[in-house]
Amino acid sequence: MSKFALQDKCYRITTLDAKDIRWPTSLGSHGSDAMHTDPDYSCVYVTINTSDGLYGNGLTFTLGRGTDIVLLAVKAMKGMVENRTSHSIFGDFAKFWRELTSESQLRWIGPEKGVTHLAAAAIINALWDLWGKIRGVPVWRLLTDMEPEELVSTIDFRYITDAITPEEAISILKSSKEGRESRVASLVSNGYPAYTTQVGWLGYTDDYIRTLCQKYLAAGFTAFKIKVGQNLQNDIKRCKLVREEIGWENKLMVDANQIWDVDVAIEWMKQLREFKLLWIEEPTSPDDVLGHKRIADALREYNVGVATGEMCCNRVLFKQFLQANALEFCQIDSARIGGVNEILAVYLMAKKFNVKVCPHAGGVGLCEMVQHLQMWDFTSVSCTTDDRMVEFVDQQHEQFVNPAEINSNACYIAPQAAGYSTELKPEAIAGYEYPVGTEWTKMFTEGIFKIQEY
Amino acid sequence: MSKFALQDKCYRITTLDAKDIRWPTSLGSHGSDAMHTDPDYSCVYVTINTSDGLYGNGLTFTLGRGTDIVLLAVKAMKGMVENRTSHSIFGDFAKFWRELTSESQLRWIGPEKGVTHLAAAAIINALWDLWGKIRGVPVWRLLTDMEPEELVSTIDFRYITDAITPEEAISILKSSKEGRESRVASLVSNGYPAYTTQVGWLGYTDDYIRTLCQKYLAAGFTAFKIKVGQNLQNDIKRCKLVREEIGWENKLMVDANQIWDVDVAIEWMKQLREFKLLWIEEPTSPDDVLGHKRIADALREYNVGVATGEMCCNRVLFKQFLQANALEFCQIDSARIGGVNEILAVYLMAKKFNVKVCPHAGGVGLCEMVQHLQMWDFTSVSCTTDDRMVEFVDQQHEQFVNPAEINSNACYIAPQAAGYSTELKPEAIAGYEYPVGTEWTKMFTEGIFKIQEY
Repeated sequence: MSKFALQDKCYRITTLDAKDIRWPTSLGSHGSDAMHTDPDYSCVYVTINTSDGLYGNGLTFTLGRGTDIVLLAVKAMKGMVENRTSHSIFGDFAKFWRELTSESQLRWIGPEKGVTHLAAAAIINALWDLWGKIRGVPVWRLLTDMEPEELVSTIDFRYITDAITPEEAISILKSSKEGRESRVASLVSNGYPAYTTQVGWLGYTDDYIRTLCQKYLAAGFTAFKIKVGQNLQNDIKRCKLVREEIGWENKLMVDANQIWDVDVAIEWMKQLREFKLLWIEEPTSPDDVLGHKRIADALREYNVGVATGEMCCNRVLFKQFLQANALEFCQIDSARIGGVNEILAVYLMAKKFNVKVCPHAGGVGLCEMVQHLQMWDFTSVSCTTDDRMVEFVDQQHEQFVNPAEINSNACYIAPQAAGYSTELKPEAIAGYEYPVGTEWTKMFTEGIFKIQEY
Repeated sequence: MSKFALQDKCYRITTLDAKDIRWPTSLGSHGSDAMHTDPDYSCVYVTINTSDGLYGNGLTFTLGRGTDIVLLAVKAMKGMVENRTSHSIFGDFAKFWRELTSESQLRWIGPEKGVTHLAAAAIINALWDLWGKIRGVPVWRLLTDMEPEELVSTIDFRYITDAITPEEAISILKSSKEGRESRVASLVSNGYPAYTTQVGWLGYTDDYIRTLCQKYLAAGFTAFKIKVGQNLQNDIKRCKLVREEIGWENKLMVDANQIWDVDVAIEWMKQLREFKLLWIEEPTSPDDVLGHKRIADALREYNVGVATGEMCCNRVLFKQFLQANALEFCQIDSARIGGVNEILAVYLMAKKFNVKVCPHAGGVGLCEMVQHLQMWDFTSVSCTTDDRMVEFVDQQHEQFVNPAEINSNACYIAPQAAGYSTELKPEAIAGYEYPVGTEWTKMFTEGIFKIQEY
């Protein structure tokens, strides 16, 4: 048991409520990429209620179909949360995390990956929101203010002790104590650097891409990412077009969303070498550590880094990517691996292996959540923003009570509200809960969508 | 399109029916291991019906809770199967397989792992059963008799071309043509070697273990596997006890079911070195290629091989285990990776990398299915049974119309019935469909089990 959490007021968790919420984003081409051609941005949205009226919200991001499957997995887990006290969870959070992710029958259908791990992430994220609210601080500040021992006590080190031990993790956090308050002050004044993926989804016209480049340049962005991988000539054309607009001083990254085999990735990227690309993101299968290593080795001479992580399923895969020196940019996702606890382990391993974390965001709520984690990285882990930035996509923020916000220097503004910025507005839920929300009912009636039926 | 499948009679698929079937095996300690302490052996059972009355059955194995989640995933996919013709599927089976496993919205909640991949496996296995019945042969014979080009055309090579190309796969199969019919004849006469896991589930008493060793020795078994990992002294005691019963000429393997971290695995296994163990199975996380490699390297001097695969999530992970030389025994599972098509790719990669395949079985229907694949390995891929064997566990066979059978030399008898041996008896379904089956209704009434409710 951690002595720290026991100093907080103790809350009794009454109910865990979960909902399937979907937005009809496939009606535009927003969010389309080489592998996900028609996403309806969605989430499983969890509310953990306590007997005192305080509640925590968390979510995992999905693309429409299949949200109901993750929802069912959350429901299968809710008995492990209801009727617990906050002390019994936060007092030994690593133990609770393992119980949730290693339930003796459910783990067979994972383990620690896919549907069940997404479900665990939604629950765990809701618990961190609750914990932030219990302490009355935003999660980035909760993490920053924690004693190293308490923070590390939330992490399940199973399967990663060959890469990092709890003692090493504590020592990393202790060594960053110096200057922490001045970094906090700088964060509150200046925010944290963002980059935009808005300019180059597949399916956008050339003119629209130019317009968007101009818009985001004017908004202060200096780093831009576009999708590639469907057609080499088209990729060359679009890289050229974007470089014409943003010039050569600004950063340009490309994202293949897993479309290539290893050798194709290497050859394709050689053809794009003239565009001075900072990274190639998801060149191949998210499971292929050794494949990424081959690609990283081959592209080093062109100064193109390999980035991956948004679909990396858990800390064991991340560990190997780091051990194998298979990536230069580690793109943690706030809703895929099992929530904050497991992501903390990845940040600490990345620090040890000297790899930069540049989180994946966009979708639904990913910007809202991951900004907290990356701000903690700045205050307490890497202690720098050099070559680091958080993805920003301007979608679905208006659905949140405390949306992620970008300042005039294209930096994320440090959240001030207590919690994890994960609460949806009541009207978002009323409109877009699937299939009963008012907006969906209207779309079914008008024949714009057919209701999903099995 | 494959010209071969178009020579078969064409069937129209009408409906795909899926059921949640569970047996209350947790009432004994049968099947318990270090990580799965109370399994209720279960499956999602798929029936694919055609307009001609011919049908195919397939399943994926589960442990009780969570079967409903996989069931929902099967239902989410059934629209991709219903109203198709057999020609449109088998005529380009790799294309169909990719459609099923990479559906543009559903893939996000995988991809190709966990719940969605188990669901795909159940469907794909049912299609192979149907295909066997269309050609009127058991699946091992269907595979053996296929032209190499047709067999290879069923495999999706995405993400594995850096390890094996379709041309290399065809060439492996062509080179095994010589002697194939004599191997078929030997298989039909002698069967295929099995080993037993029956003697050493955790939770058995010493006396019961001795009794079981004697029973399986008498039944002709020469290879035995026991569970380890909860307590070192107890493991030493049980290894000693089993060696006393089976002697030193017979083979002994141990299985840790993922309980250890990498360094613990190495140290623990050094303590068991005196027992001349053929392999240590699942020493650590099933996702940890580099960890297994370290363990394999460390244990080579003790002549203990590393075995894993029953929870290896897809061909991309298997590819890396093989490329990294991280295992000596490749334990494919017939229901975890995406069905027969993907498993064929693993067999062919294992052949290329010179690694022995010794399939995982047991559970529900795993013996029934995997015997077909391993028999094909003998007729057409490795062409030998040296150091190869299929796990056999005497559980749930009585539920099947064509159960796996072991002869008096402890060999699997080559199935003769057309299809994949996957059909459950009507009374098994009537009794154990969850939660409506007659046996479950009785257990709920008697208070032996509480019905699962969310």
